[in-house]
Amino acid sequence: MLAEMTETKKIHNFSAGPCILPRQVLEKSAKAVIELDDIGLSLIEISHRSKEFISVMEKARALVKELLNVPENYSVLFLQGGASLGFLTAAHNFMRKDGKSAYTVTGEWARKAAKEAKYAGEVDIIATSEDKNFNYIPKNFEIPANADYLHLTSNNTIFGTQFKSFPESSIPIICDMSSDIFSRKIDVSKFALIYAGAQKNMGTAGTTLYIVNNDLLGKTEREIPSMLNLQVHIDKDSMFNTPPVFAVYTCMLTLEWLKSIGGVDAIEEINNQKADLIYGEIDRNPLFEGTTEKEDRSIMNATFVLKDETHKEEFDKLWQEAGISGIKGHRSVGGYRASMYNALPLESVQVLVDVMQEFETKI
Amino acid sequence: MLAEMTETKKIHNFSAGPCILPRQVLEKSAKAVIELDDIGLSLIEISHRSKEFISVMEKARALVKELLNVPENYSVLFLQGGASLGFLTAAHNFMRKDGKSAYTVTGEWARKAAKEAKYAGEVDIIATSEDKNFNYIPKNFEIPANADYLHLTSNNTIFGTQFKSFPESSIPIICDMSSDIFSRKIDVSKFALIYAGAQKNMGTAGTTLYIVNNDLLGKTEREIPSMLNLQVHIDKDSMFNTPPVFAVYTCMLTLEWLKSIGGVDAIEEINNQKADLIYGEIDRNPLFEGTTEKEDRSIMNATFVLKDETHKEEFDKLWQEAGISGIKGHRSVGGYRASMYNALPLESVQVLVDVMQEFETKI
Repeated sequence: MLAEMTETKKIHNFSAGPCILPRQVLEKSAKAVIELDDIGLSLIEISHRSKEFISVMEKARALVKELLNVPENYSVLFLQGGASLGFLTAAHNFMRKDGKSAYTVTGEWARKAAKEAKYAGEVDIIATSEDKNFNYIPKNFEIPANADYLHLTSNNTIFGTQFKSFPESSIPIICDMSSDIFSRKIDVSKFALIYAGAQKNMGTAGTTLYIVNNDLLGKTEREIPSMLNLQVHIDKDSMFNTPPVFAVYTCMLTLEWLKSIGGVDAIEEINNQKADLIYGEIDRNPLFEGTTEKEDRSIMNATFVLKDETHKEEFDKLWQEAGISGIKGHRSVGGYRASMYNALPLESVQVLVDVMQEFETKI
Repeated sequence: MLAEMTETKKIHNFSAGPCILPRQVLEKSAKAVIELDDIGLSLIEISHRSKEFISVMEKARALVKELLNVPENYSVLFLQGGASLGFLTAAHNFMRKDGKSAYTVTGEWARKAAKEAKYAGEVDIIATSEDKNFNYIPKNFEIPANADYLHLTSNNTIFGTQFKSFPESSIPIICDMSSDIFSRKIDVSKFALIYAGAQKNMGTAGTTLYIVNNDLLGKTEREIPSMLNLQVHIDKDSMFNTPPVFAVYTCMLTLEWLKSIGGVDAIEEINNQKADLIYGEIDRNPLFEGTTEKEDRSIMNATFVLKDETHKEEFDKLWQEAGISGIKGHRSVGGYRASMYNALPLESVQVLVDVMQEFETKI
């Protein structure tokens, strides 16, 4: 499908991730693969200990601190392994040797986080929305004061739900923010650990951001293997082993872009406009319906279905002709999912809405 | 230093890793960051489940099998985490719950491999060359028949030594080949597991190759966390979680290049020529001496020192003027290290040898 559209039509990339990145990030990172700045060598063929790459890593980390107002006593790391390794890292660094942890299961990735934590110790599932195929965010659940931490997944990519606010908690909060970090303002000081795969709002797949409260580390009485030990990575300035240089570079560029357009405040406003536009149409158009509770709708991933599946072929033809890509829903929800990460322009959402309206006139 | 050479002079990149890659790999991978093939989207902004990326992953895996004659009962995976996570993965997948493992410590990375394995169980150091700052490869050591596996590091990047042949062993052999895989013919069937970070002969930092004998998995009676469980990755065709798409793509391109120049047989011959050239000069030139036992010299990393350090400044000036980059020795050896990975042309080694000879005439 993609191949047919080349050159004749702009593609509107609603992919759920890896996903659309700002054009200038693609251009600058491609240029660096040929030659980094003007050093005569490629970004990917120099030592990660060179002053040139150290500067890339430091800039990327500093931009995270600046854009999210990260408190002084927090460290910022770019590591490997995706959120999937983060599940294990979170548990090893925060669950005491004979302690326990509290998990909220609000989607597929939240479930995986809880599953992997069980390899490190006891996991209490204290809230879940599995009873309704994860179409809402549980609220007012009790947080056990004797658990070592509470684990949340801020945005559920597959199901299209999002924590609009985070619970008050007397125990440390760990949050997987893979699919909505940098999309809205957050108060980092409320979290012991935030981790996020890069491949949505931050850059290309291959690196994972960790933002961790230094004061809360080293309290588990565990022997933690080096690659899972956040203190080891902090002590080595995020270069304990060879970092994924290209992925870190794309993060630096994407965060530079975000800063240039006004930072998280500005992008949150645009993201809200995009979300209002698509959800407005889903609610107005009699042919569609959203799949989640309205109050828990994600501003990143809008999930919706046709009320009458018999017109599916016709709708699919329309959006494909309009150059829209990547809106097929995940198999566990069906229907459609419009992922509207930071780099997706409002214009692309408008094209989708236009198609939905055109569809209405044809049925 | 690098910055001054731009455009006026070709740079001879002897970096120990990340290191030189074939020019066409840089050009093709940069192009794919702008647009993959002709699909209208970048390599780094499409789903890893798209047919386009699945094809990249499959090609990369197939090239490994072809170039190394990997037996049918082996799986090939591209994962994240570097060899450093491989240390843990190796131990978890091959050391029985109450078993033990046998390690050879032939350098810094071999020592790290043994250290991380201790988080999984008992580690016997059965041979080490630490007594002589790792300047040789131990031989004729006894391999305990009751250990679950023997761990080797085929090439020691920092010290410049290499296993020229591998010991006969009645127990499975696991080998970290990060710095010499694809540089010479190997008999994969002799190994239970081979793992290797990509950033020397294979591609850019950010992915790690695993070649594993399927028949030997699942025997440890351990509960292995998913990200460390090779069977999990095999069952998901190396896509258990989002793969590092760019790094895998550069591997595919580099292996295509290797195949195009005649494969491992051809590159081994060139690598031997490069090694003969530099070691010949080190031995001939009265101003230099090698730091390792001759019989254990690495064809990838040649380490040498000035016999008289008082002329250091003059020699350093000469090679810098010749456009040579990255030959400063590691702090634990001192002197110089010429890393001659697959993509380094013979011409670059000749330039270094010319400089060494010019230096001789000047002293």
